[in-house]
Amino acid sequence: MTKIGLDIRGGDHAPEAILAGLQLAMPELKANTEVWVYGLSDDLKSLPESCVAVSCSEHISMDEHPVRALQQKPDSTLLRGISDLAKTKIDCFASAGHSGALMVASMQALGLHEGISRPAVISLFPKMNGEQTVVLDVGINVDVKDEQFLEFARLGKAYAQSVLNKENPKVALLNTGTEASKGNLQYQRVYQLLKDREPAFIGNAEARDLFKLEAEVLICDGFTGNMLLKQTESFFSLSQDLGLNHEFLERLNYEKYGASPILGIKGKVLLAHGASGPEAIKSMILGAESFASANFAEQISASSTI
Amino acid sequence: MTKIGLDIRGGDHAPEAILAGLQLAMPELKANTEVWVYGLSDDLKSLPESCVAVSCSEHISMDEHPVRALQQKPDSTLLRGISDLAKTKIDCFASAGHSGALMVASMQALGLHEGISRPAVISLFPKMNGEQTVVLDVGINVDVKDEQFLEFARLGKAYAQSVLNKENPKVALLNTGTEASKGNLQYQRVYQLLKDREPAFIGNAEARDLFKLEAEVLICDGFTGNMLLKQTESFFSLSQDLGLNHEFLERLNYEKYGASPILGIKGKVLLAHGASGPEAIKSMILGAESFASANFAEQISASSTI
Repeated sequence: MTKIGLDIRGGDHAPEAILAGLQLAMPELKANTEVWVYGLSDDLKSLPESCVAVSCSEHISMDEHPVRALQQKPDSTLLRGISDLAKTKIDCFASAGHSGALMVASMQALGLHEGISRPAVISLFPKMNGEQTVVLDVGINVDVKDEQFLEFARLGKAYAQSVLNKENPKVALLNTGTEASKGNLQYQRVYQLLKDREPAFIGNAEARDLFKLEAEVLICDGFTGNMLLKQTESFFSLSQDLGLNHEFLERLNYEKYGASPILGIKGKVLLAHGASGPEAIKSMILGAESFASANFAEQISASSTI
Repeated sequence: MTKIGLDIRGGDHAPEAILAGLQLAMPELKANTEVWVYGLSDDLKSLPESCVAVSCSEHISMDEHPVRALQQKPDSTLLRGISDLAKTKIDCFASAGHSGALMVASMQALGLHEGISRPAVISLFPKMNGEQTVVLDVGINVDVKDEQFLEFARLGKAYAQSVLNKENPKVALLNTGTEASKGNLQYQRVYQLLKDREPAFIGNAEARDLFKLEAEVLICDGFTGNMLLKQTESFFSLSQDLGLNHEFLERLNYEKYGASPILGIKGKVLLAHGASGPEAIKSMILGAESFASANFAEQISASSTI
């Protein structure tokens, strides 16, 4: 039995959009998957029959101070979910809520994997050949120490192995050119560091090759990764405005593919865009189901740099 | 009379692609525009009649060390052009050649505008409404001091005023979100600096709004700007691969819109992509013509921060 926790009060359009997304996801979930829904008692009245209702007395709003909110609201949907995950009552917790609060709660209640100094958030970018690239960090580590790039490589590889079933994932560094001398001073140092200590490192990759990368894992600081994500959104929105249609463009739509696992913590947490609508929530729930059954913890323990 | 200098030996496909681009550009140039062509004597045999041939004895290859090449090759096409620009024999010089050598030669022979510490390279991004955004820096300043962002704002405004005829251009800072607290530590500091000292600053802009920005000038460090440029190339190439057609997509094609003015130096120099084909060279020559007649120097002198 796979048990997924869902925060019904997370996101700009909660609880309506989350409930609607749950309804969309239910028919596509496997028979042995159970959804635990964390919500206020009113939210839980019209749940699909097979769901487990977890009634909470409060929730954290999008504009609250994360640390203060966590201290003041122990019975919030977000904290109850993370707490049940820590107790292994559920296998994965998914929320479109306050990303800062989710991050802090996850670190406090679950702790970090050995050798990991900070969590990282990944995003999956589509490739022309139908496969996907694991890109990290895409937002929370905007000022990064050189050594964190080694952690990103480890986390990205473990995800590619355990969730995407890639046996020997290759790692590339996002940079302004392929030569070792390219990029700013940090990226020049990091290139050498990866060359010396990451066996799966195959060199720099340029954003111009984003949709046809050789590597399965693309690493960068969270400032640059967030830009990459946002610019991809701009291209999807441009294609909508221009009336262009293609199946591949749909894969750039964060409404469908926006949920990002938070890696590095000892537990499986998925974070979706605050603006998520029902389609994005459905996608988050299905993503949580496949993440829940992956042996990510073993892969990250087995992985190492030199 | 507007006099444009053209380096026939600059670029991966020189001299053939440059000569072909010149042939394409000739019919579209104004009657009072004259093209001075800097090449080896063999290159100059089949020039269009109205061009001025400037015979040089050598040229700088794409893989040479810039400073050494400039010292050893005073009669190269690149140095002769920059030297004639310094002597005001020509109004603008354009090359798809060695960007490092072009940058160093420009700084040495022409000098920098007052208050400018380093040159910057701009790129014009299309807007959905048919207008353009001046984006800088897009490549040469990959490690940037906070104060350089103020210089980027000044240079971008002067270009928008003198070349794009925008009376009161607005400046935005490319960032991961619109709030003042967004971005890495440098971008948080720079936001405050711009707020305090740049009257045209209207706040942060996100890459997701790239094609519908309110600002006419978008500033960022050269590492981030180069990523933005490269990712835009990936979109164009993706749309080609997917067989998508739209006039707007053509405007993302660096083959057509790739020439970038180098701003901050006391002289007008245009740099095109090394891989430029005839269409890109034609575009560079037409761009040089309009840049040559702009009163950029006056605008940059008149501009100031508080």
